[in-house]
Amino acid sequence: MQPIRLHKAMDHCVADLPRGPLDFYRQKASFNWKDMLLFFEGEDILAFKQHVFNALEGDPVFARQPGEDVPLEKMRELTFLRYQRVLTFYHQQHPPLYMLHLFLDCLGMYDWAMSAKYFLNKGVSVHLLRCAKLEITYGCFALTELSHGSNTRAMRTTATYDPATQEFVITSPDFEAAKFWVGNLGKTATHAMVFAQLYTLDQVCHGLHSFIVPVRDPKTLLAVPGVLVGDMGKKLGQNGLDNGFALFHNVRIPRENLLNKTGDVTPDGRYVTPFKDPNKRFGESLGALSGGRVSITRMALVNLKLALIVAIRFSATRRQFGPQNTEEIPVLEYQLQQWRLIPYLAAAYALEHFSKSIFMNFAEFQLGQMMREKSARQAEMGREIHAIGCASKPLGSWTAQRGIQECREACGGHGYLAMNRLGDLRNDNDPNCTYEGDNNVLLQQTSNYLLGWLHAKHRGQFNAVRIESPFHTVDFLNDFHKILETKFTAGTMEECMDSAVPLAAYKWLVCFLLEESRRRLEQLRASGKDEFEVRNSSQVYYCRSLAIAYIELNCLQRFHDLATDEDTPAGLRPVLSKLCALYGLWSLSSHMATLYQGEYLSGRKPTELVQMAILALCSQLKDDAVTLVDVFAPSDFILNSPIGNADGQLYKNLWATVMQGSQVLERPSWWKEFCSDKPVVGSLRPKL
Amino acid sequence: MQPIRLHKAMDHCVADLPRGPLDFYRQKASFNWKDMLLFFEGEDILAFKQHVFNALEGDPVFARQPGEDVPLEKMRELTFLRYQRVLTFYHQQHPPLYMLHLFLDCLGMYDWAMSAKYFLNKGVSVHLLRCAKLEITYGCFALTELSHGSNTRAMRTTATYDPATQEFVITSPDFEAAKFWVGNLGKTATHAMVFAQLYTLDQVCHGLHSFIVPVRDPKTLLAVPGVLVGDMGKKLGQNGLDNGFALFHNVRIPRENLLNKTGDVTPDGRYVTPFKDPNKRFGESLGALSGGRVSITRMALVNLKLALIVAIRFSATRRQFGPQNTEEIPVLEYQLQQWRLIPYLAAAYALEHFSKSIFMNFAEFQLGQMMREKSARQAEMGREIHAIGCASKPLGSWTAQRGIQECREACGGHGYLAMNRLGDLRNDNDPNCTYEGDNNVLLQQTSNYLLGWLHAKHRGQFNAVRIESPFHTVDFLNDFHKILETKFTAGTMEECMDSAVPLAAYKWLVCFLLEESRRRLEQLRASGKDEFEVRNSSQVYYCRSLAIAYIELNCLQRFHDLATDEDTPAGLRPVLSKLCALYGLWSLSSHMATLYQGEYLSGRKPTELVQMAILALCSQLKDDAVTLVDVFAPSDFILNSPIGNADGQLYKNLWATVMQGSQVLERPSWWKEFCSDKPVVGSLRPKL
Repeated sequence: MQPIRLHKAMDHCVADLPRGPLDFYRQKASFNWKDMLLFFEGEDILAFKQHVFNALEGDPVFARQPGEDVPLEKMRELTFLRYQRVLTFYHQQHPPLYMLHLFLDCLGMYDWAMSAKYFLNKGVSVHLLRCAKLEITYGCFALTELSHGSNTRAMRTTATYDPATQEFVITSPDFEAAKFWVGNLGKTATHAMVFAQLYTLDQVCHGLHSFIVPVRDPKTLLAVPGVLVGDMGKKLGQNGLDNGFALFHNVRIPRENLLNKTGDVTPDGRYVTPFKDPNKRFGESLGALSGGRVSITRMALVNLKLALIVAIRFSATRRQFGPQNTEEIPVLEYQLQQWRLIPYLAAAYALEHFSKSIFMNFAEFQLGQMMREKSARQAEMGREIHAIGCASKPLGSWTAQRGIQECREACGGHGYLAMNRLGDLRNDNDPNCTYEGDNNVLLQQTSNYLLGWLHAKHRGQFNAVRIESPFHTVDFLNDFHKILETKFTAGTMEECMDSAVPLAAYKWLVCFLLEESRRRLEQLRASGKDEFEVRNSSQVYYCRSLAIAYIELNCLQRFHDLATDEDTPAGLRPVLSKLCALYGLWSLSSHMATLYQGEYLSGRKPTELVQMAILALCSQLKDDAVTLVDVFAPSDFILNSPIGNADGQLYKNLWATVMQGSQVLERPSWWKEFCSDKPVVGSLRPKL
Repeated sequence: MQPIRLHKAMDHCVADLPRGPLDFYRQKASFNWKDMLLFFEGEDILAFKQHVFNALEGDPVFARQPGEDVPLEKMRELTFLRYQRVLTFYHQQHPPLYMLHLFLDCLGMYDWAMSAKYFLNKGVSVHLLRCAKLEITYGCFALTELSHGSNTRAMRTTATYDPATQEFVITSPDFEAAKFWVGNLGKTATHAMVFAQLYTLDQVCHGLHSFIVPVRDPKTLLAVPGVLVGDMGKKLGQNGLDNGFALFHNVRIPRENLLNKTGDVTPDGRYVTPFKDPNKRFGESLGALSGGRVSITRMALVNLKLALIVAIRFSATRRQFGPQNTEEIPVLEYQLQQWRLIPYLAAAYALEHFSKSIFMNFAEFQLGQMMREKSARQAEMGREIHAIGCASKPLGSWTAQRGIQECREACGGHGYLAMNRLGDLRNDNDPNCTYEGDNNVLLQQTSNYLLGWLHAKHRGQFNAVRIESPFHTVDFLNDFHKILETKFTAGTMEECMDSAVPLAAYKWLVCFLLEESRRRLEQLRASGKDEFEVRNSSQVYYCRSLAIAYIELNCLQRFHDLATDEDTPAGLRPVLSKLCALYGLWSLSSHMATLYQGEYLSGRKPTELVQMAILALCSQLKDDAVTLVDVFAPSDFILNSPIGNADGQLYKNLWATVMQGSQVLERPSWWKEFCSDKPVVGSLRPKL
């Protein structure tokens, strides 16, 4: 096994862009694309990515035909075979651990199902390793059940300890408690990490714990006795991943298979736990999921970026209409097309920095956990990263979902051809809105966090309580009252084109929504409603909007800091500043009514200024748009979309791919059914 | 052949709903569902629908397994076989012509690809019939080309008349001019209605005309010499329909194959046309497309309704969390879930009436065309229905696209299972945003129409010019100035819960955006920009918003008229009024900033009232929601979504369908690849 040889010279790790119709825009770019690449990625990372992409492209097992119709069974087989290669590759290379996420991103650009298969198995393998008795094979996480998802506490699978044999007995009370939606379980998993309610013989339930349970024989892939395990069938996307279900009928596993992080059972059957507070224990057992949400933010962003590469390269080469019926102009020249796509491009840059930055926050928290740090700051970091992750996932996944749909529509009919990949991107991104917590449900965690701070302030002397959170995302609340007194002051469109303008507006917005939410909750409590009803009736327009505004502010703030940082190369700052201002103003557009409602804005002028600034920024950025997507474009092989190839030969590539299709010019195999002349006698008639 | 026997008694044509968990809500409904059904559909229609559904369900060729993985080739074969049955069925039944659209809707509920196949072929057959020499077989419309879609005038296929043989020579100058995206052309069409630039021998181009061109031999389905015809491959959805391409290499067709509606060529090669104005001729040749847009509005609505049936029945039976950890409550009880789904339900009812009502408008226009009516009113009707259709398609298709996505997310993970159909609905609905004109491009037609009226007013004495359009959608512009002076006056939430409130706001909004758009255009013209640039720079925030506001107003106005009409049964008026108010307020929500900007609203109160009214209406309608979807639900067989079955046995049906899947419990066919113990040696290594 050899360590990776990293090329230190950019020219070795970044291929030059091919000449072609896209040069029209590339030549007009206001910045050097390799400088931008280097700024966001760094040489080591670029070299590693290039290395992974080349390896995939060079291996026939990864070969594919854009838009091909692969049967479900075949898709799963291929994904498995590819997964095996990837495993070998990674082990041979053993790149530094911080590159694991980068590696998963690279795999995801190729296919998220393959990335997920790798990630899920890797995650469980760590636990499998601990259970020394088990041969390491193929794992999965089995948490959700047929009738329960969001409400994790309500899972009904049981694990009852039997001291006579020192075993746990795993049981599904009925089919509604079948483990369901478990990735890798459909066809391949041999072991499941099953979350079950732990019972001791005295019938006391000690809450949800996880257990390693064998489900298939690794030699034959046949189900283990007592386990009904199978495949859930086709999904909207990510069909390379085999999601499955399992029903357990008194399956006995050794005592050691309890993953005893949050509690253990002694051989004679007594339950012991390091936690005094069962709520804290529950929190701990789910705490590991926070990293997932931060990762999903990034996964969604990767999808958005891929869709934008396709849509912007298409828009720069597709010509339709023109001023004089003489020559047609690229559709990217139309204000409408710019307005549909370029704000999402700005969002992609904002999210690029944001997702990396919160990943670093999470890493800092995780490091503390690994060091068994017990300080108040560590606990506070946990709360803050939880609040961030619970809102960053909705921000990332929804922005991507809407952006990909806009890209699909912006490419017209050609965007509807499967070979151009926009459908797969949308379908593969879609579950990011749902798993690891439904977006709408998660946002409540974030608003609770923010309300907690306001509550703390109100409990003490308001100004005596200083907020200083580990990641500083709520420190501005110290100026709560002062911020609420601010107003929109920009008087010209040019003034508006500075990200400081939306930034100030967002601070006001978060404070306003926080105060409104607090008031709403108090009103409901005062009216005698129980706490459940109070929470239920304060989400829409209040707590939900608050959490969204907070995370948008946070994303904008970090981008603003980057764009104005003196360490950011001077040659890149102008374009980054425009992207930042555009992202801020465009995001803010969906909150304009609230800004008016709270009288932060008034009169006709501000809306007009914001709108004109957005359009001006779109127009100024349109010549940079192609280069801005070049920066994050993988190779054509990975992108896998003929209308999005780097050479910009839109029609040549599309036509070639159509002609390479299977049986494209052949008559259908069932042509005789078509040509038979006998009158069609409907079998319907007798039934009428 | 026998005419349909229509059952006049409701009980014969509407099956009773099965008992089950949905009774909890059904018993609380505020109206009788059969009354509503009868009100919207009428007995003849109900009987016909039931008849079609039963026929499909009773014929094994229509049998399917929810979520099954059907290969592309098989999907096309099945769709063709089903199409043949449908053809026979319709011809045997020969229902009245006005039921054709209803019939297409019924087929679409089953599968839009099959409906499209039927519709496309039927449309072309009419023309084929005229060409007496041709054997009637299988047709398609070939308009768009690889490099041109929206810009129809720019099509490059040519048809050159050769008087020597009295033939037209059809030629594609190059592959970029290949006919592309042609439904039915991929595998089955024998004849294409090809749109080509007509040239006479003197090299004069007479513009776009349509020609019947044979493409495949009806006996063998092999391509005709000179024609390269093939299949475009997989699409995001509607894969039962074989979209294709064709390249013509000097294909000779008889003179009679020119469809001479807009122009003809004499045997000796002189071009003659009944139109003096070539623009009018062009308009006429595309005029037939207006009906398509009105139909697409309805098709999109059908998709939205199907998604809502699934999501609302799911939400009424899926339980998660609860006030006391004792019993969990249906997720439909959560304010957030209500707010996500019930406004779309209100939109579905609004669009139900709207789509029928504009269809009647279109029918009136079409009747005039058939009677060769040449009055000014007929021409005006054409302009108005064009303006309506160009905005109703965006309204319908976007509302459906967003609504289906919300339904998918609202069903959580289970919504992501292919068998529950939400993915297919989204994918099959998606092209409604694109074909028959890209939504954003079409909206320009509508704003041009509206600006034309304002222009006419400004040209004359403003108040002297009375607007009275055939369908009265713009008559309110007579009060333009008066309306612009109005303000929001509702002082309580209860007042807001009347659709008159959003209706008044919408009238103001349209007038405001109309005036702003006019001003914007004038400013740009005054700054010396050419007309192309003026139009290009006035779409976003101006003309585009104007067109959307106009069509929303129109939809709301018609629903408001229905809900307040004394002929509407008294028992239905309360629930219809609530739906109407909710639709109006919810739609209006996306324009609140503009209402503040123009000072129709001011201060904190109005937003709060509108928001509280929306939430109150959602809450009041939640007990009716299940019954409201029962009204438009087809049989379970047609709906084809286990989580949306009428019996509400969510988990039983879902589990049963999973277990009925193909090879669900079997190990994969490639299990030996999994179990082989030999270390995986990556083929990647030598390349590193």
